[in-house]
Amino acid sequence: LGKQIFSSDRMYANTPVGVVMGLAWTAMGGSSLYIETSKRNIRSEKPEPGTGALHLTGNLGDVMKESAQIALTVARNFLHHREPNNTFLEQEHIHLHVPEGATPKDGPSAGITIITALISLATGKPVRQDVAMTGEVSLKSKVLPVGGIKEKAIAARRSGVTCLILPVDNKKDFEELPNFITDGLEVHFAGTYDDVYKIAFSDTATTASSSTG
Amino acid sequence: LGKQIFSSDRMYANTPVGVVMGLAWTAMGGSSLYIETSKRNIRSEKPEPGTGALHLTGNLGDVMKESAQIALTVARNFLHHREPNNTFLEQEHIHLHVPEGATPKDGPSAGITIITALISLATGKPVRQDVAMTGEVSLKSKVLPVGGIKEKAIAARRSGVTCLILPVDNKKDFEELPNFITDGLEVHFAGTYDDVYKIAFSDTATTASSSTG
Amino acid sequence: LGKQIFSSDRMYANTPVGVVMGLAWTAMGGSSLYIETSKRNIRSEKPEPGTGALHLTGNLGDVMKESAQIALTVARNFLHHREPNNTFLEQEHIHLHVPEGATPKDGPSAGITIITALISLATGKPVRQDVAMTGEVSLKSKVLPVGGIKEKAIAARRSGVTCLILPVDNKKDFEELPNFITDGLEVHFAGTYDDVYKIAFSDTATTASSSTG
Repeated sequence: LGKQIFSSDRMYANTPVGVVMGLAWTAMGGSSLYIETSKRNIRSEKPEPGTGALHLTGNLGDVMKESAQIALTVARNFLHHREPNNTFLEQEHIHLHVPEGATPKDGPSAGITIITALISLATGKPVRQDVAMTGEVSLKSKVLPVGGIKEKAIAARRSGVTCLILPVDNKKDFEELPNFITDGLEVHFAGTYDDVYKIAFSDTATTASSSTG
Repeated sequence: LGKQIFSSDRMYANTPVGVVMGLAWTAMGGSSLYIETSKRNIRSEKPEPGTGALHLTGNLGDVMKESAQIALTVARNFLHHREPNNTFLEQEHIHLHVPEGATPKDGPSAGITIITALISLATGKPVRQDVAMTGEVSLKSKVLPVGGIKEKAIAARRSGVTCLILPVDNKKDFEELPNFITDGLEVHFAGTYDDVYKIAFSDTATTASSSTG
Repeated sequence: LGKQIFSSDRMYANTPVGVVMGLAWTAMGGSSLYIETSKRNIRSEKPEPGTGALHLTGNLGDVMKESAQIALTVARNFLHHREPNNTFLEQEHIHLHVPEGATPKDGPSAGITIITALISLATGKPVRQDVAMTGEVSLKSKVLPVGGIKEKAIAARRSGVTCLILPVDNKKDFEELPNFITDGLEVHFAGTYDDVYKIAFSDTATTASSSTG
């Protein structure tokens, strides 16, 4: 019955460009959340490179605000290597919001989710549907472990997620989970943001390695 | 008798361009409030796109201030798609105020009301008279549920509102209200801001589907 | 004897351009106060429209600071309609002070007084002498009711005021006052700022409608 409350906590049936599902965790349990991004100055024509900025809303704490700045730097570098002509993240003013506005949110664990949302917005490609992810990121794009793996896995299932991306150093935590949580969840463990990118923007599940938790 | 106090809580007999009635809710009950918007720099000639800003007053808490920033991004995107040549929201400095100035206000539930006020100001079209609305909005223009539906519906009636716009996920809450509250109230449930726009800027009630609460 | 203390609370025998008498109210009683305005950057020649700003002093609380910002937007719009070539309020940096500096002041009820001081400064016209006013203003120039009408009326008389401008929704409060307070006080009730302007800048009392409290 308690779970029924959360069964509708999925805002998007399909995540559009610029939107990625993350996972949060408090003493009250886990929940899914969305990172949403949009251009803020829609028609700014050819702004100067280096003028882009990130406008943050969603009742974010200081650590999460810093996490978004780290994600922006990592996403810019990642995109620069992958698509040298794509200057979106360096020029545009981007608004990043995390619904719902009244709920305070903090912590670094949305790092890879924020990078992915920014890259989706910059490239115009939506992420794979039914994917959720959690992981802190370092400035050099290392994916660092986070807390609440059990609660987050449960929240992912409740939200209809079928593909989960976790930090490689959380593999142990995931493997300790009982089968009734992990059955049917395709899980991927990421050591760097490259690993996240490959899964999040794969069109099919051909790169998937199913969990054998 | 208690209700008599509130019978004069309607500031505008007719809402002018840039003004929309919202609904607030506290432990003390519901009340109507107005979102008012005006150009702040009246004669700024052809400012650069991307320079527009939002100046906020009305004793607003942090969540409501963020809500206004979200509303600005959503309104810019909405207007860009609907009226590509209308650059008002991207160029002008806009002042948004929520009377009365001494009353603290907070929360995300004025999201759709603020978007509507901004679009009214930008297009020069007033909203349909006797409409009130409440709903959080996400950056991608999803309308999210809010609290206090009963108190807000009562406040709407007291203020002479005949058309109410609510989030689709609050449909259940509205349908549980007794008839003496809902009788004569035309209600619309919105899933995205598109739904709100169609009702708020409809000239006639031809698109209306009356509540059968 | 107690009243004697306040008999000297009138700073100006005649209010110069840019200065208007308002009325304040605390649990200790009412008092008159002055809104003073001046150009801050005296020699700035032809600054760009849209660059004007308001510099506030006088130990003002947050609500009163916001009230001054609202007043600036309303005054700009009002002046734009009345004197389209007068760009003073949109170009000049204006300093607004409320003596005495050691006394904390707050609340929205100086709204119409601040607008009037700004318009006086911008047009170079002093207001009618012996007028005092109180009233919150909304962004669309509606005059909203305020508290402490009795205390403010007493303070106005003590300061030698003969003409009082009050919000229309305070008419009832004023009419309940005993004759010894209202006798000889010419009173005007304002619904919008237009009503205030007509009285404040009338040279004679020909437009006056005496109180019949």
